[in-house]
Amino acid sequence: MTILLQNVKLNNQTTDILISDNIFKKISPNQPTTADTVIDCNNFAILPAFYNTHSHAPMSIFRGISDDKNLFDWLNNDIWPREAKLTPEMVYTATKFSILEMIKTGTVFFSDMYFFSEAILQAVSDMGIRAAVSFCSCDLFDKQKLQTEIKKTEQFLNTPNPAPELIKKVLSVHAIYTASDDLFRYNAKLAEELNTNLHIHACETQKEVDDCISKYNHTPIQHLDYLGTLSDKTTLAHSVWLNDTDINILADKKTWLCTNPTSNLKLASGIFMLNKLLDKGCRITLGTDSMASNNSLSMLSEMKICALLAKIAANDPTAGSAQTIFEIATRNGAQAFGLNAGHITEGALADCILVDLNNHLLAPEYNLISNIVYAADSSCIDTVICNGKILMQNHHIPGEEKIIEDIKKLSNFFR
Amino acid sequence: MTILLQNVKLNNQTTDILISDNIFKKISPNQPTTADTVIDCNNFAILPAFYNTHSHAPMSIFRGISDDKNLFDWLNNDIWPREAKLTPEMVYTATKFSILEMIKTGTVFFSDMYFFSEAILQAVSDMGIRAAVSFCSCDLFDKQKLQTEIKKTEQFLNTPNPAPELIKKVLSVHAIYTASDDLFRYNAKLAEELNTNLHIHACETQKEVDDCISKYNHTPIQHLDYLGTLSDKTTLAHSVWLNDTDINILADKKTWLCTNPTSNLKLASGIFMLNKLLDKGCRITLGTDSMASNNSLSMLSEMKICALLAKIAANDPTAGSAQTIFEIATRNGAQAFGLNAGHITEGALADCILVDLNNHLLAPEYNLISNIVYAADSSCIDTVICNGKILMQNHHIPGEEKIIEDIKKLSNFFR
Repeated sequence: MTILLQNVKLNNQTTDILISDNIFKKISPNQPTTADTVIDCNNFAILPAFYNTHSHAPMSIFRGISDDKNLFDWLNNDIWPREAKLTPEMVYTATKFSILEMIKTGTVFFSDMYFFSEAILQAVSDMGIRAAVSFCSCDLFDKQKLQTEIKKTEQFLNTPNPAPELIKKVLSVHAIYTASDDLFRYNAKLAEELNTNLHIHACETQKEVDDCISKYNHTPIQHLDYLGTLSDKTTLAHSVWLNDTDINILADKKTWLCTNPTSNLKLASGIFMLNKLLDKGCRITLGTDSMASNNSLSMLSEMKICALLAKIAANDPTAGSAQTIFEIATRNGAQAFGLNAGHITEGALADCILVDLNNHLLAPEYNLISNIVYAADSSCIDTVICNGKILMQNHHIPGEEKIIEDIKKLSNFFR
Repeated sequence: MTILLQNVKLNNQTTDILISDNIFKKISPNQPTTADTVIDCNNFAILPAFYNTHSHAPMSIFRGISDDKNLFDWLNNDIWPREAKLTPEMVYTATKFSILEMIKTGTVFFSDMYFFSEAILQAVSDMGIRAAVSFCSCDLFDKQKLQTEIKKTEQFLNTPNPAPELIKKVLSVHAIYTASDDLFRYNAKLAEELNTNLHIHACETQKEVDDCISKYNHTPIQHLDYLGTLSDKTTLAHSVWLNDTDINILADKKTWLCTNPTSNLKLASGIFMLNKLLDKGCRITLGTDSMASNNSLSMLSEMKICALLAKIAANDPTAGSAQTIFEIATRNGAQAFGLNAGHITEGALADCILVDLNNHLLAPEYNLISNIVYAADSSCIDTVICNGKILMQNHHIPGEEKIIEDIKKLSNFFR
């Protein structure tokens, strides 16, 4: 299978791009039009697609059901009682809907943490995007539940992978305030053995840090380090509350910090110190968190909020430049999961978006990356290609009407 | 002219809405289909349109030309030298482009501060939305320039209003650090005589407050009060840095505070204390500021950032609820400019948007206002009606292609 992107704008030049199988095969003007599919890109610029490194995709079923509440009230009264009623079928439907929104907004990869993970694997495979899927383990410091969580993790790892070229099975542990040291040690060891990624919530709130210091006499990062969980294959979601010692550890271990700016604001958790962390050599990716705490999966909106918060955190408008944030949302996200993607170069995985240069949000045309980060929305994205396959063209995803209908039907159950 | 919105969702009910001339004439189901235009609203919900109370519309020509810089560098090296080259024709072209973006994102009114204001009047009239247009006076404490600014203000007020039913001519003074006491007193007196609105930048940065205290021994708000500029027809843009005395004055005078959250973050100015100001009885509206400091005119994006910042400012996720922010962006904005609008009720001005309930961003359908504030983008807005006239239908504004082409041509001049 080959696709020729004809006369596409790449870095302010017009060129042709040949996609062969799942890679960018050749980037040069005036290529022969012998590809299986030829797309006239006269009004399109090509850009890397987005890599969303922290989400809970099935929570799309809870978008808008409860907002503007205190965390405890929200979780106890609105989210957890409803999560207890979820079935694998529901998780499948809700995950497909989340993926629909991701594709519409230019995302081709997400790293997820949830349960009924087999249903998530199937939804990802059916929608054709990339994902790092995990079973989110969490034993609540209960010895018996520890064994159940280990068993569930093993079960998940033994489930057949319906799309090995797109999906990476990874590991996750919820957080230090919900999981025992033994559960962390088990996952850290397994991640090393399997040479796979480990995904953890860390330092989301000041309370988490204060409670950890009271309990262990050191910070969550120090505790995670002591448990052997920090490596260059570990992603820590949130990472808002870090001290200088923590930052040195994280830079030293090359651990990925996934910032979730919207969620951190919506739950009044705090503001990520992007500039300081970059200055200290930390590695950063971007994620939307779930539709229940955002409430959108748009990496476009997330990039803007990320850039804006970087400036206020540093008290410096030069912090979090559009270019920096764009690279965090594309190249860094891919790199954190070992993908040669997030950049449009020969030999890289053929993941990309085609944006419509006739859209008002991309005019004037002084700086496309600035327009994408600070002005664009989903209306700018015409086409999404993942692993050399067209997932959306002319703003339309095959079957989208049914996916939206299905989530609406399902939502009646939770009202 | 009559328009019948047939089977439209209003507050979770399905009804018909008859627009006659420029008002909502009748809201009830099963109306006769004898209107001049009948719109099948089967998949649409009707909502108030947005009222953007602080902008500099012609600055669309500078979107993306310079970002992520310190204020002084940005203004001196990138913005002011280019503004010096602007002509009325350029201001007309750039304002039309801004209005295009406003309509696409559901806005039907903006309050503007700029120069070549006659060109702005014409652009507003040609595009058919509402506006409060002013000549932004600013004498830089120069006695001679004071007289020029007064003359320019008078000239502007004497220019014929090309669309009196849509456009209100109002007054504006740039800020206390760029305008003399005499210029403020002149505008305050004139605003009272003409019973019109007065628009001022105030308390945007901590530096502005510190400098004011050094110079006058009181805060900018105290100074503006002393000059007689504060009333229930005054809008203060930004209003980030306020002390308790300031807040009491502003609540007492019923002065409108227009928050510009994106701009305040982008320039690292600070965070508006929305919840505290509401608690103290202050009146609040929302504005995008210009495309040079935002860089979008979407009130959808602005509402989300406003809600999120309210929570972090108050360290309370219950602050800045979706409903509160939505009312600030609709009803409050209209009220600040004396418009019986921003709500869908019989007798109110017929300003509204029709949103597409089949759009993924508006699903599930637990809470439309939450979805609009936290998830929606321009792709959700199908139709915009202002003063009983359809400005956009099926996402298309007549003549939009030419308007986008024109801004691109013009931008070549500024590269």
